[in-house]
Parts: sequence; structure tokens; C-alpha cells
Amino acid sequence: MDIELIKRLSQPSEQKVLFCVIDGLGGLPGPTGETALEAAATPNLDRLASEGSQGRTLPVGFGITPGSGPGHLALFGYDPLTYEIGRGALEATGIDFTLTTNDLAARGNLCDLSSEGLITDRRAGRLDTEITARVCESLSDIALDQISTHVLAVREQRFVVIFRGDELSDDISETDPQQENVAALTCKPLNGTIQAERTASVVRRWVNAAHERLSGRDRGNGLLLRGWSTRPTLPDFSEIWKMRSAACAVYPMYRGVASLVGMEIVDAGLTINDQIKQLENQWDDYEFFFMHYKYADSAGEDGDFGAKVQAIEEFDKSVPEMLALEPDVVVVAGDHSTPAVMAAHSWHPVPVLIHGKDARSDLTDSFGERAAIGGELGLFPAKELMPLTLAHAGKLAKYGA
Amino acid sequence: MDIELIKRLSQPSEQKVLFCVIDGLGGLPGPTGETALEAAATPNLDRLASEGSQGRTLPVGFGITPGSGPGHLALFGYDPLTYEIGRGALEATGIDFTLTTNDLAARGNLCDLSSEGLITDRRAGRLDTEITARVCESLSDIALDQISTHVLAVREQRFVVIFRGDELSDDISETDPQQENVAALTCKPLNGTIQAERTASVVRRWVNAAHERLSGRDRGNGLLLRGWSTRPTLPDFSEIWKMRSAACAVYPMYRGVASLVGMEIVDAGLTINDQIKQLENQWDDYEFFFMHYKYADSAGEDGDFGAKVQAIEEFDKSVPEMLALEPDVVVVAGDHSTPAVMAAHSWHPVPVLIHGKDARSDLTDSFGERAAIGGELGLFPAKELMPLTLAHAGKLAKYGA
Repeated sequence: MDIELIKRLSQPSEQKVLFCVIDGLGGLPGPTGETALEAAATPNLDRLASEGSQGRTLPVGFGITPGSGPGHLALFGYDPLTYEIGRGALEATGIDFTLTTNDLAARGNLCDLSSEGLITDRRAGRLDTEITARVCESLSDIALDQISTHVLAVREQRFVVIFRGDELSDDISETDPQQENVAALTCKPLNGTIQAERTASVVRRWVNAAHERLSGRDRGNGLLLRGWSTRPTLPDFSEIWKMRSAACAVYPMYRGVASLVGMEIVDAGLTINDQIKQLENQWDDYEFFFMHYKYADSAGEDGDFGAKVQAIEEFDKSVPEMLALEPDVVVVAGDHSTPAVMAAHSWHPVPVLIHGKDARSDLTDSFGERAAIGGELGLFPAKELMPLTLAHAGKLAKYGA
Repeated sequence: MDIELIKRLSQPSEQKVLFCVIDGLGGLPGPTGETALEAAATPNLDRLASEGSQGRTLPVGFGITPGSGPGHLALFGYDPLTYEIGRGALEATGIDFTLTTNDLAARGNLCDLSSEGLITDRRAGRLDTEITARVCESLSDIALDQISTHVLAVREQRFVVIFRGDELSDDISETDPQQENVAALTCKPLNGTIQAERTASVVRRWVNAAHERLSGRDRGNGLLLRGWSTRPTLPDFSEIWKMRSAACAVYPMYRGVASLVGMEIVDAGLTINDQIKQLENQWDDYEFFFMHYKYADSAGEDGDFGAKVQAIEEFDKSVPEMLALEPDVVVVAGDHSTPAVMAAHSWHPVPVLIHGKDARSDLTDSFGERAAIGGELGLFPAKELMPLTLAHAGKLAKYGA
């Protein structure tokens, strides 16, 4: 649905929405012929599906496998083909770094270079995060004309570098060749503007200075940069929907996406129990709660069907505590499918349920990929989930007389 | 479907289409766990659904609750997000007033004003319609340069005022502040054009003159105007589809919308039996009959589940008489859902059936919200119902060689 139309129709209401995203929720049948969601014992989710409406979201389009960015943007109501978050920006927000409109971010890897300058290990033996943090520290005072930098460890050998200055361009090339036994690439402008040329030159100077400082190291004596991106411009979520919105996510990347659309971030802790405590603490202060649960995706990415079943069961066990908060509308969705048998994200539609007093109950009585085919909500674009959800919470006025 | 494409493909055929709209057809489960349509005894509709194709229309979009205007425009094949009927225009057509392209209409309320000019009751105690009619009469000869006016009672304190003249603009502000204890607003142009300035000035003069005439009254000594709109420009229905089209509706608003798209209006009488008699009388003169049945919506709006069941059963009983006319294609659709439990329009999809010799029968054997989930037609935008219907009547040629 068009965001301008939504702005016209949306209206404040006191109803509270608990919007749960089980990352990588959808899957393919495993050894038993059932998907992880079907095989998992999920009495609570089954009850919500049975009392409410069930269906399937198409995250981006038919056959399109989404990354986490587009998967979540769609769930938040943004057309993921119109709005994009660059990888550098996603990684930066993923470590709670607040990007400004003057920032250009890239994902970095510390790598091992041979004496001839060839990449011998793109990941520097997956250095400890703490070592990477110290290395980043040592790179943070490289002086550049009118440009400041932030260099921040992410995890293992991964880091983020942010260049801050006027008119930086993201239309420059990556230095990571994404293969070994070759040299790192030189950053070049990808268009003929002054901005791109100047930015590429700044990056080259920084990379050279960084390589000098790293040259004495045993492991991680080089670095590779990719995913150049500036802060994306996204219409403000809370303004579109006229409600106070909070994100409760253990993993920084999901806090990051939520923060880019303008949600407030509440401290989530480390476990789903911590998250639920935070929901309780913040319950009076917001109308919309985005609750992100990561572990179904992690297990799927690991190709571990059993762990995915377990992760989903774990979530299901927490459902009663969430319901005890008495949300008016509960949504359980996924940003994409992550079939364990593929050990990767996939394009398959994702089961979704909406529970609330105005949800039209269908004839399904369990939550799952195949039950959802017969559900009330049908197969629909994930970006339409927000208008559907908010309609159930009385937050959308009638269109036309 | 794109109207230009339809114009290219549509072709005359002698087949007759009976296009029934049961207003507010869809609902939510009531006390028995069934919806009104499911609970109603509808042997005739069930047979049509069983022999024909069934599915669900999405009136405007996911989560969007349509008013009657957009709900019907969509059923008539017009994208309700592209074509809008302003509130003033809808109200005017709703009392059988035929708007010309020189008309500017607004909805009015008689209101009570204090001696300081503050609104003490926006609805003047809901004056009797007859009193409002007399007041409107007394306002109808206010003289304005080159502009004529019509002032017509609608119901209780509501009326419509139509300004007729060259180049009137609807881009002017409302005088109704939509709250009490404040003064009525002054009509102002909302853009810098001569047309808007001139129109606002005409309206101000008229409002002042009207207030003078009303000033002696006990109740209804003021008026408030909103919903400025000109006659919408809608491509002609009969031209798009190359068929003679008639509207048979008891309620003026639905005659109004049909007339705005260019259908001819046949006198419908007051009951469904009157309507069927009219269909019989006019059967030879048209290929397309829009037959509007109001009472499912009225019962839903009243929150009366039992009355909605009854209204649907009433319609069902009339089906054999309609079938006796031997229409080639019968459609039974709704403009939106009106769940009795919500006592209001809603966003939920609406069951629809198409019956005719080329309809692909599905495995459903009763007409209802949940049966329709498994139907041939799936969940589809209401604006696509016309192309689907007319295809069944041989009125759409092949696209491409």
C-alpha cells in the first residue's frame, strides 16, 4: 500500500500491537516430511493460528531470496524494491552505530597478506573479536583532510569503517576481490563526478595508511572493504502509522534496521526471557512492539533441522508470557524462509498469523507452511502485512465515503 | 485491469450479465462460530457457488476499509485509488441530484450557534428532516453573480449545497471545524489560482447571506460545510465494455454511483420484488444489469447478526426468480464486508461467485467466507471482477495472436 495513502488514513488508537518476527521462519520438509515449523511442538502458535487468521507472505517477489534488510523493510511496510539499505550501512547500524547523512560506511575484513601482497586468508584465520577491536582502535586516528573516520569491530575479523564528511559518494569500487591468491583491489570512482573521484581518493589514502600500520602484524596485516553505502532515507515509521514504536531485538542488525526506519530501541538483553522482561517494562510507553527472534534463522543457516525445530519450540514456550501482557493484536511473521536443507535464505513464502478480536478465523488449526495455504490471509506481499495488522488494531480509517 | 486495454479487447455480445451486489456481504463469525453468510440458509446461492466459481475480492487493498463509493467503483472495474468520488458529490448523487460538470457540491450540517458565534451543537439536536427541508427551501434563492445554487435536505440536519457556474474550484477549505465551542471557519482558497479565490469568495458571500436568514431561528441558526467536490470524471462504463448497462438500486447513493459511471438508471421501486419486476420489464433493453441489495449492510451496520442472516436469506429466496430471466452469467459480489460484530464496514475480503456455462467449477459446495478460500477465483482485487465477469460473457477478445 502506498505510504502517502497510509499517512492519510492512519489514526492513533490505544490498541497495542505485538509484532513478532521469527527470523528465517519458513522452511522445506526435513527428514520426517514435515518442515521445522510443522514438526515443532507449538501448541501456543497453533492456538493463535486457529483462533486468528493465517496466510503466507511473499517477502520481495516470486522467486526472490531476500537478505535481512529487504526482508525486514518489507515487514515494516516499505517496498523493498523501492527502499534499499546498503550493506555497509546495515553493518554499521548492526553494531548500534548511528549513521548521519554525512556518513559513508563499508564492511571490512582483516585479512592475511603475503610478502608479495597477495591475500592468503580473506578472514585472517577468523581473528578473535577482541583482537579486531584493538586493531580497529589503532586505525581510528588516521588523519584525512576534512574527513573523520570511525573504525569499529563487528565480530571475529569483521569491522566497519565510516567516513564522515561533506558530499561523500557511495559510487566507488570495493577493495575486496572476494577471492584469495590475488592482491586487494584499488578503490576507484564508478562515475565521473568530483564527489566519487574525491571519495575514492580519500579511501585510497586511508587504506594505504592503514596497511602501513598493520604491516608488522602476524595475522590480519591487511584489510578488505566492500558494501559502500550512505545512510538510506526512509519515511519515519512512527509518523506513517501515528504510534509510538519500539524495537526489542537481541541482534544489533535488527535493532539497526528498526532504528533506520525510526523505531525507538529498547535494551533487549541476550535471551528471549530478557526480551520479554523489557516488553513488560516498556509496555505502557509504546503502542507497537517489534520483537525479533533470531535463532530459527541461525539454525537454518547452520543446516541444522533439529536445532531449528528446537528454536521454534523455544519461541512457542514464551508465547504465554507475551500474551500475559494482553496485546490487542499479535502478529507472528518471518522475514524470509531459511530451510535447513538449503542452509541459506530462500524465496519460499513465509507463514504468518494475525490474532486479535477482529481477525477472521479460518478453518486451519495449526501454524505451518502448508496449513497456511488454506488460511484467510492468502498469499500476499510482505509489505502489506503492516496495513493488515494496523487495520486489526483500529489504526486505519475508512477510505472514501 | 487497465481500462485502455479493456477498451481494445471488449466486444459486443448478446449474452446477458446479472451482476448482483449484496452490500456489506462479508462478515466475521458470530455467536455460532459461523459468519452471517455461512449461517444463513442459502440453497440457491450454494448451488450457484457449487456449479460456478467462487473466490474472494479485496475491495481496495490489504487492510483498507472502503466506503461505499470506492467499494462500488472497484466492482465496476475502476481502480478506487485512481478514481475518487468526493464526499459532496457522493452525497448529492445519493439524493438523486444529477451533478453537471459545472457543479461544486458540499455536505452541510445545520448547527446551533451561541450569541458569540460559537458552535454549541454541530448537529442542531438532529433536526427533523422536514424542518431541514424547509430551511433549505428558504436558502435556495440567495442571489450570487453568475452562480446558481441548489440547497437540498438529506436527512435530519444534513443537507447538500451545490454551486453551479463556470470554473468553480474544489480546492477551498471547509467551514466545519468538526468540533464544538469554536466558531465556524471561513472558507479560503487552498491554492493561488483565480478559480479557487473566486470560489472561496462566492462561498463566503453565500454563507454570510445564509447565516443572516437563519439568525432568527431557535435551533439550526447556523451551518457548516465540508467535503467540497466537483463531479468526478469517470470513463464511461458502457463505452468501456461495449454494452448497454442498467442499474437497479433501491437506495439513491448506489443509483448515484452507477449514474456517475454512465449506467442508465431504471426505476427500482422499494423492495427486491419491485427490483425483479423492473429487471423483467427492462430485460430486452440491456446486456448488463447492476442489481444492488442493501439490507445485509444495513443489518451489519446495526450490529444485528440475526437481521443480517435474514437479509441474506431474503436475497437467496429471490434468486430463482432472477434465474428465470435466464441470464447467461450471474455474479454475486459485495462491495465490502460489514461484520455485525463490528457494526461497521471492514477491510476483510468479500466472497464472490461467478456462474455461467464457462465458469470453472471448483470443489466448494456452499457460498461463504471460508468456503471461498478454497475456490477457483482465489483472493483478487475487486477491480478485476469486471474483466473476469465479462470474459465469462464472451465480451473480451483474445489478447495478442
